[in-house]
Amino acid sequence: MAKPLNIGLIGYGFMGRTHSNGYTKAPHFFDLPYTPVLKAACGRDQDKLKAFANQWGWQSTESDWRKLVERKDIDAVDICTPNNSHCEIALAAAANGKMVLCEKPLSMNPAEGMKMVEAVEKAKVANTVWYNYRRVPAVTYAKQLIDEGKLGKIFHYRANFLQDWTISADLPQGGAGLWRLDVAAAGSGVSGDLLAHCIDTALWLNGRIGSLSAMTETFIKERKHVATGKVEKVGIDDACTFMCRFDNGSLGLFESTRYARGHKALYTFEVNGEKASLKWDLHDLHRLQYFDHRDEGPLRGWRSIHVTDGDHPYMGKWWVPGLQVGYEHTFVHQVADFIQCLAEGKPCEPTFRTAYETQLVLDAIMSSAKNGQWVNVAK
Amino acid sequence: MAKPLNIGLIGYGFMGRTHSNGYTKAPHFFDLPYTPVLKAACGRDQDKLKAFANQWGWQSTESDWRKLVERKDIDAVDICTPNNSHCEIALAAAANGKMVLCEKPLSMNPAEGMKMVEAVEKAKVANTVWYNYRRVPAVTYAKQLIDEGKLGKIFHYRANFLQDWTISADLPQGGAGLWRLDVAAAGSGVSGDLLAHCIDTALWLNGRIGSLSAMTETFIKERKHVATGKVEKVGIDDACTFMCRFDNGSLGLFESTRYARGHKALYTFEVNGEKASLKWDLHDLHRLQYFDHRDEGPLRGWRSIHVTDGDHPYMGKWWVPGLQVGYEHTFVHQVADFIQCLAEGKPCEPTFRTAYETQLVLDAIMSSAKNGQWVNVAK
Amino acid sequence: MAKPLNIGLIGYGFMGRTHSNGYTKAPHFFDLPYTPVLKAACGRDQDKLKAFANQWGWQSTESDWRKLVERKDIDAVDICTPNNSHCEIALAAAANGKMVLCEKPLSMNPAEGMKMVEAVEKAKVANTVWYNYRRVPAVTYAKQLIDEGKLGKIFHYRANFLQDWTISADLPQGGAGLWRLDVAAAGSGVSGDLLAHCIDTALWLNGRIGSLSAMTETFIKERKHVATGKVEKVGIDDACTFMCRFDNGSLGLFESTRYARGHKALYTFEVNGEKASLKWDLHDLHRLQYFDHRDEGPLRGWRSIHVTDGDHPYMGKWWVPGLQVGYEHTFVHQVADFIQCLAEGKPCEPTFRTAYETQLVLDAIMSSAKNGQWVNVAK
Amino acid sequence: MAKPLNIGLIGYGFMGRTHSNGYTKAPHFFDLPYTPVLKAACGRDQDKLKAFANQWGWQSTESDWRKLVERKDIDAVDICTPNNSHCEIALAAAANGKMVLCEKPLSMNPAEGMKMVEAVEKAKVANTVWYNYRRVPAVTYAKQLIDEGKLGKIFHYRANFLQDWTISADLPQGGAGLWRLDVAAAGSGVSGDLLAHCIDTALWLNGRIGSLSAMTETFIKERKHVATGKVEKVGIDDACTFMCRFDNGSLGLFESTRYARGHKALYTFEVNGEKASLKWDLHDLHRLQYFDHRDEGPLRGWRSIHVTDGDHPYMGKWWVPGLQVGYEHTFVHQVADFIQCLAEGKPCEPTFRTAYETQLVLDAIMSSAKNGQWVNVAK
Repeated sequence: MAKPLNIGLIGYGFMGRTHSNGYTKAPHFFDLPYTPVLKAACGRDQDKLKAFANQWGWQSTESDWRKLVERKDIDAVDICTPNNSHCEIALAAAANGKMVLCEKPLSMNPAEGMKMVEAVEKAKVANTVWYNYRRVPAVTYAKQLIDEGKLGKIFHYRANFLQDWTISADLPQGGAGLWRLDVAAAGSGVSGDLLAHCIDTALWLNGRIGSLSAMTETFIKERKHVATGKVEKVGIDDACTFMCRFDNGSLGLFESTRYARGHKALYTFEVNGEKASLKWDLHDLHRLQYFDHRDEGPLRGWRSIHVTDGDHPYMGKWWVPGLQVGYEHTFVHQVADFIQCLAEGKPCEPTFRTAYETQLVLDAIMSSAKNGQWVNVAK
Repeated sequence: MAKPLNIGLIGYGFMGRTHSNGYTKAPHFFDLPYTPVLKAACGRDQDKLKAFANQWGWQSTESDWRKLVERKDIDAVDICTPNNSHCEIALAAAANGKMVLCEKPLSMNPAEGMKMVEAVEKAKVANTVWYNYRRVPAVTYAKQLIDEGKLGKIFHYRANFLQDWTISADLPQGGAGLWRLDVAAAGSGVSGDLLAHCIDTALWLNGRIGSLSAMTETFIKERKHVATGKVEKVGIDDACTFMCRFDNGSLGLFESTRYARGHKALYTFEVNGEKASLKWDLHDLHRLQYFDHRDEGPLRGWRSIHVTDGDHPYMGKWWVPGLQVGYEHTFVHQVADFIQCLAEGKPCEPTFRTAYETQLVLDAIMSSAKNGQWVNVAK
Repeated sequence: MAKPLNIGLIGYGFMGRTHSNGYTKAPHFFDLPYTPVLKAACGRDQDKLKAFANQWGWQSTESDWRKLVERKDIDAVDICTPNNSHCEIALAAAANGKMVLCEKPLSMNPAEGMKMVEAVEKAKVANTVWYNYRRVPAVTYAKQLIDEGKLGKIFHYRANFLQDWTISADLPQGGAGLWRLDVAAAGSGVSGDLLAHCIDTALWLNGRIGSLSAMTETFIKERKHVATGKVEKVGIDDACTFMCRFDNGSLGLFESTRYARGHKALYTFEVNGEKASLKWDLHDLHRLQYFDHRDEGPLRGWRSIHVTDGDHPYMGKWWVPGLQVGYEHTFVHQVADFIQCLAEGKPCEPTFRTAYETQLVLDAIMSSAKNGQWVNVAK
Repeated sequence: MAKPLNIGLIGYGFMGRTHSNGYTKAPHFFDLPYTPVLKAACGRDQDKLKAFANQWGWQSTESDWRKLVERKDIDAVDICTPNNSHCEIALAAAANGKMVLCEKPLSMNPAEGMKMVEAVEKAKVANTVWYNYRRVPAVTYAKQLIDEGKLGKIFHYRANFLQDWTISADLPQGGAGLWRLDVAAAGSGVSGDLLAHCIDTALWLNGRIGSLSAMTETFIKERKHVATGKVEKVGIDDACTFMCRFDNGSLGLFESTRYARGHKALYTFEVNGEKASLKWDLHDLHRLQYFDHRDEGPLRGWRSIHVTDGDHPYMGKWWVPGLQVGYEHTFVHQVADFIQCLAEGKPCEPTFRTAYETQLVLDAIMSSAKNGQWVNVAK
């Protein structure tokens, strides 16, 4: 019989919903040694919080996250707040012996990130960061193919994350749902929000990055700030691009922007190896494109693999071949894996330490973009 | 505060799972006047049933569906059993004043279907048939576009449903998960299983079919029967094709098969109108292809609409633009709509009466395939 | 050194241009035992004919095709006139001992077609019909794959040819470039114009058709006739669909129309075999889609083969991998093959006799569409 | 009546063929004031040259290009030789008052390039560089759309040119067809061969580049050299990537490589503007992808425009809608435009002076790749 795993959730916004859905659905599809219990949700606006808790079945609410992390009946703290509060909350949670599940990016900067790593490691609590795209079945399958050596030596890795939702100059910075445009809350713009995903996947699939050269741009220089009501300088990057060299000798090319008209959330990556290549695209997340040079010569072509078969990662738990899952399932998978790892005493990747690597790359990006030099990624 | 709606589910197979998921998820995403309560699940194998009930949180189990439909604490009976039991269960449920939600196809034949229609109408109970693909957001949106007159006069409607999972001669008929190959349980092969979906959507989008000419084929003539252990004649159709004339003057072309190598569940339809055309494909169900002749001449092209925006049907309830939902969400939408309709005292389409129309078309298909003649669809 | 092959061309319209281009380009890319010489072009409007001859380098012109087919300096007569004159010209050409290259469809009906077959066979002259799509490299390659047995037993063949250029009711029948809408000149509508291509390819790839059931429609019932200046009944079919059974046991489904908004010339076919499937599309004619069930399970997917490599049919004669050829090249290939066959004393497919088979199918289609019955194709 | 334009061609390799085809076909499809006459072809291997001249109808041959450029009966010299001879030939041709058509890239470096510009300008001879991809109809159409302001302010330009033909370490440098791997003949690797195309298109579509940061890599460090028979250091770049800032404020990202397994000649570009975006791909060169934010909200989507209509650039001269042209047609278009410009006394873009701009960007790339700094492009 599955034991309960009492969750305390902090933040009830977009990520609060994806995680709540993950906790709710995971036990319906996966045979888990622990059953997540929606013990307490925490937030500032009590009316909205109550409505949220009611909709998802959170058993109680808290208005102060400090109280939540001290509650005896909470096993794991899930941090879904803006980036600038991740560190403080995580430290307190770890100090209280709670497991910590933290939204990405881990932190505002490497210094904060290292504190968080040290805190959870010192407290010996299970921890993970919600880089959810690792658990798109097609992406997990890409990882398997690379690890099996199907691609051979890697020459190129390229990724981009293109959006178009901030092109209008009328959008304010800060305010409901717009904290991502406020540098004080977000720390950065597309680099921390979008590139962070690309980097996490890249490090996972292709190993460490040695050095890089980056460029950032803020197309809209001033926006009204919701907090002050005044037009203020925009501190975030609207676009961020970098070239790099991976430790395995391959070249990398990354781009993210919120000014690519026509793209809603086009996260794509492509890996070119000596023997085979693969590419993936969030807009059709259930497909993996694969080219194998070992195929009979004139019959070679990019295969569009519909990753919905029972022998594809995670898919044996869902429906039947041809029937796709969607975005939200990545969170269900992470919940299931977190619980499975917990039972086996294994880390659930990406851990805080792993996610810290992404912070190091982000830091090198910011540094390079500022000084116009190639920068070595700290290790 | 939402009132409870007590569900009694009969059958715990593939459809038992999709419906359970629908009941569970709907209240998390939609603001509903009733909350589905997973009151009782019914099935024959009690071990499997218990495991199923446990995984989904069904509060009780029954081994005899007759008991279930008589239980006072059940408001609605959901029929997820093989086709040959739909009629009997529905009649009993209606007789007991229960709402009835029935898996498709409604019945084995029009005679059964009419009995079912009469039963629910006489009992004045809410009823619906799970032709779930109507509630793929892209399909619902197609309906809106047609109803708005965006396409103008319709010339052509074509649909197919292609699979490849029964090509191996080693598959038995009957047995776990394979009742669809046993004519006694399924009534027919691809026509009732796959074409039924195509027909339901077509009637919904394009109106009634007047006459048709059909062809069926059974490629594998004999298969081992699980019930008898012997090799027996296969009674189902492996492939079924028909041409037709709709009442609106357009021509229709339909094909379904389980022998189209390379296609897992490729349900596609295309509608060609005087002013615009659209097409859709289950393998990328979150997209709608649209061509508008009113676009500026040289800029005309098929648009690939990523149906994930807040102003697309149902999508305002889910995530953010660019993040796709999947197959299972169609059932969530049907649960939400059923409950909304219930509260408003409106029928939830397709009702039994509506789904009966599909049975009439299926009957005409079987008749035409047998006698090689054009057949008028009964009205 | 290549010997001259003197061509006499009748008709200088669209097909006059594609063929002239074929004769001109073939020797630049293929090493041919004969060099086509543009000896004489024949047409009614002498100003237009002269301009045409001048543009392409036709050495002389004729206003009467009877003169042309009697000219001693002509080796081969190429018929590019409307369908209703094919037979008469071909008979005269053969009677004069000329080789005959005839545009498709061969004839207005099987009776005419058989006369033409007998004429060229009696005269023992080389002959071919311009079903040019056989010589799209991707289509030729499809034929190779099927002949090699890559697909195994065939279950399904489906093809359609969708256009949208006659939706406007303002188009007249007959007149410049519009003889295809005049039943007197064209014999039929989409069946002879578009379906004929689909049938030729199908018979080539999948063998003979045994029986079929067809449906035709004329959406615009009356159009102004250019010859009379009056609004007259339209005699052609605007759309034509048929289902059939091939002699090899596979099922066929064909559709053609000029009322499919959004499709310019979408000729597609798909073949589903036990082991593999393939599909092709004229709108991206340089690609072949291929699915092979023998691929490693989870890596199976439709391959998009860019048919531009040196080991793809014909492509070794053109550019380098990745650089596509277009529509016109199909005619160049047919010229090259005709000349090669001529030198080797072999028939150049499709010969008149082969193309006659397509007439038999077209005849069965017309008959079935009229009487609403399944019809056996004459053999 | 069209006047003759006597062409002298130097080099009979791959580009000798594409140009010969251009000269031959242009007058068949375009009404031109001059008719190209294939007067003389020049090359070193006289047997191969004779065979080439014979196949294409070149009226005479020369073994020494110096003789050719001095011939009185030559109006225009077409340079199809390896890059390291472009300058010397062009200077001599201009000195002899010949028009000069030069293969891309213009020169080995900016110094050479400027000499060439000055030579043709001083001699006042018509000149052009064969950046043929400008004249793919879809690309020309992209230029029209941008110039019309359809995209509005541009935020992003990205392009790549991916190939995979040199992955094998067994390929030698130099030798037949492989001079592109020999730095002495080619000057550089993918940058001059592939990126040069991307840069030419980018400057044309999006204006000048201000500064850039580049990275190059040579994956295979040593290859057998055909000239010496020894294994020697490889001097070319196998991959070259750069980020840049255009003068119009947009960001650019470019990548080229011959190590992207699965891509034959995948030249793609995408332009993101405030109001609309477009993208194009050489592997389906007859299509243009277009997204227009002004479309009705929920109906927005990327349009796949099949650029084959009579009102698309150049396409009115070819076939009918839906029938695609291919790679070779870009050269036909450049011949037609060159002749038209000649008659009108206008420059045929890209002229030497225009193509010199690409050399400046290439020079900045090489410099940045060497020193790891951002470099301003000289103006």
